[in-house]
Amino acid sequence: MNNNKFFFGVDIGGTATKLGAFNVDGLLLKKWEIQTDIAESGTRILPNVAKEILAFAQDLSHVAAVGVGIPGPVLHSGYVKRCVNLGWGDFNPARELSALLHGVPVFAGNDANMAAMGEYWQGGGKGAHNLVFLTLGTGVGGGVIINDHLVFGHAGLAGEIGHIVVNPDETIPCNCGQLGCLDQTASARGIVRRAELLLSTNSTPSVLRNAESLTARDVFDAAKNGDPIACETVRTCIGFLGKAMAMLTNILDPEVFIIGGGVSKAGEYLLNIAREKYEAMAVLSDQRAKVVLAELGNDAGIYGAAKLAMDSFQ
Amino acid sequence: MNNNKFFFGVDIGGTATKLGAFNVDGLLLKKWEIQTDIAESGTRILPNVAKEILAFAQDLSHVAAVGVGIPGPVLHSGYVKRCVNLGWGDFNPARELSALLHGVPVFAGNDANMAAMGEYWQGGGKGAHNLVFLTLGTGVGGGVIINDHLVFGHAGLAGEIGHIVVNPDETIPCNCGQLGCLDQTASARGIVRRAELLLSTNSTPSVLRNAESLTARDVFDAAKNGDPIACETVRTCIGFLGKAMAMLTNILDPEVFIIGGGVSKAGEYLLNIAREKYEAMAVLSDQRAKVVLAELGNDAGIYGAAKLAMDSFQ
Repeated sequence: MNNNKFFFGVDIGGTATKLGAFNVDGLLLKKWEIQTDIAESGTRILPNVAKEILAFAQDLSHVAAVGVGIPGPVLHSGYVKRCVNLGWGDFNPARELSALLHGVPVFAGNDANMAAMGEYWQGGGKGAHNLVFLTLGTGVGGGVIINDHLVFGHAGLAGEIGHIVVNPDETIPCNCGQLGCLDQTASARGIVRRAELLLSTNSTPSVLRNAESLTARDVFDAAKNGDPIACETVRTCIGFLGKAMAMLTNILDPEVFIIGGGVSKAGEYLLNIAREKYEAMAVLSDQRAKVVLAELGNDAGIYGAAKLAMDSFQ
Repeated sequence: MNNNKFFFGVDIGGTATKLGAFNVDGLLLKKWEIQTDIAESGTRILPNVAKEILAFAQDLSHVAAVGVGIPGPVLHSGYVKRCVNLGWGDFNPARELSALLHGVPVFAGNDANMAAMGEYWQGGGKGAHNLVFLTLGTGVGGGVIINDHLVFGHAGLAGEIGHIVVNPDETIPCNCGQLGCLDQTASARGIVRRAELLLSTNSTPSVLRNAESLTARDVFDAAKNGDPIACETVRTCIGFLGKAMAMLTNILDPEVFIIGGGVSKAGEYLLNIAREKYEAMAVLSDQRAKVVLAELGNDAGIYGAAKLAMDSFQ
């Protein structure tokens, strides 16, 4: 293939859109960010992306293919039934962007799935063929790679690992309607909620009582310093992460679990707690999966989207 | 390929070994059964299988490839770390059988996974590309097909769907060590245990009180006739099957769930209860999977093993 050709990875979020231009060898040449203009039902989002791609490539003949990550379920065909954050519904952004780029091949996927693909390709999962990526942010998302391919699922839902039910003692329904989803406990929101519950139901002294507006980071920082309320919070919330990984091992038996998202900044401290519970629960497994940190941070999505484009493009 | 060539599917159980001879078009020409001779650490099992294959094929040049299902985890390479039922440990039955057949290609997999492959190919999953097979027998086993390929997993553990934790109220540990596995509730054993618990803890009249030695079939028969204890048992136990399917939809979003094993003889009655709970819990999904009965019964294993051989053989 012509060395002047580029692949683009695009990660469309509700406020910002990240773009990455890669050469045919998969080297990231440039990354940049634009605002996501969600006005007018998101109709300006893709024209803005097309403009950026053209500005970089100079000429459409230099664009080999484009991958796009979107915050919601995406069918393998690129079809999006609805994407609340972007104002889209009954829409095929892959086909639309391809039309704006005069027929350049465009492939689309869910953003957490794209991040999984990025970590598989160039991040914490490099070299593995089967892995599960979990992103612990405001909520919990994820993606599944089996035999070097991203699992889309029948209707683009695969990888919604935040909605594995893990907590039998939950009393408040998850936004999905179930009780006790991983999303309710191992997310930043879940960690703060659990800490607040413990603070309000017992009188153990805790530095967390001094925080004005508690964050998951406060909880991890206090836990690392031995604060008992913080330690119990982390043990419980991240213990459920370990339980989810044990279930995933029984179902898919991956080589690696990759933990990303803002909460994963707690690093090895978090991994060790997750590993301990995982190893205790995944009793059927002789060879448990490695548990590692994500490496690409916020760039995982553009890497994964570009990789999807490369793999889909012949 | 020569039309005189055959593929063989072999399903080795703890007491009987089933064999199927298929032509190159995948048509089952003959199926038969021999005893599994587990004496002397199972060293006679494979020579007996080789003898049967030779007797059918007349000449090894007529044997294209052989697939073998084994009751335990099998690595993609065919390696078996241990298989308690057959007395095997640290053993590669695929390589061994190939040697006994003078180099004929042999491929091996877990028996429930082979059954999944059989149902995918010629049974309830015909035409689907992504599915999960669940077999409700004495215990609960299963298999996962993604993008037309069986998922083996890193160490041959994939498809152990019986060990998804679903029952928060379980008090007795599963044989795997966890509390509340699907295996403990949606299996024949689990259904009988639940019925016995209900019978012993309340005084509601029930025909089940007359049974000498209660079976899962008794429970389903009574439930179909409106017996309240039996109905509650089935609703609870099969409700947990629906819950497991909802979790699997969030993780893998398959097109089809196939329900097999002895308990599935309860038929559409069972499926309707499973579907109801599944539909209520898989709230993230716009397009829920179909839930169907397995179609191949005890032959699923030989079909799946033969299909593995066909797919692996170039």
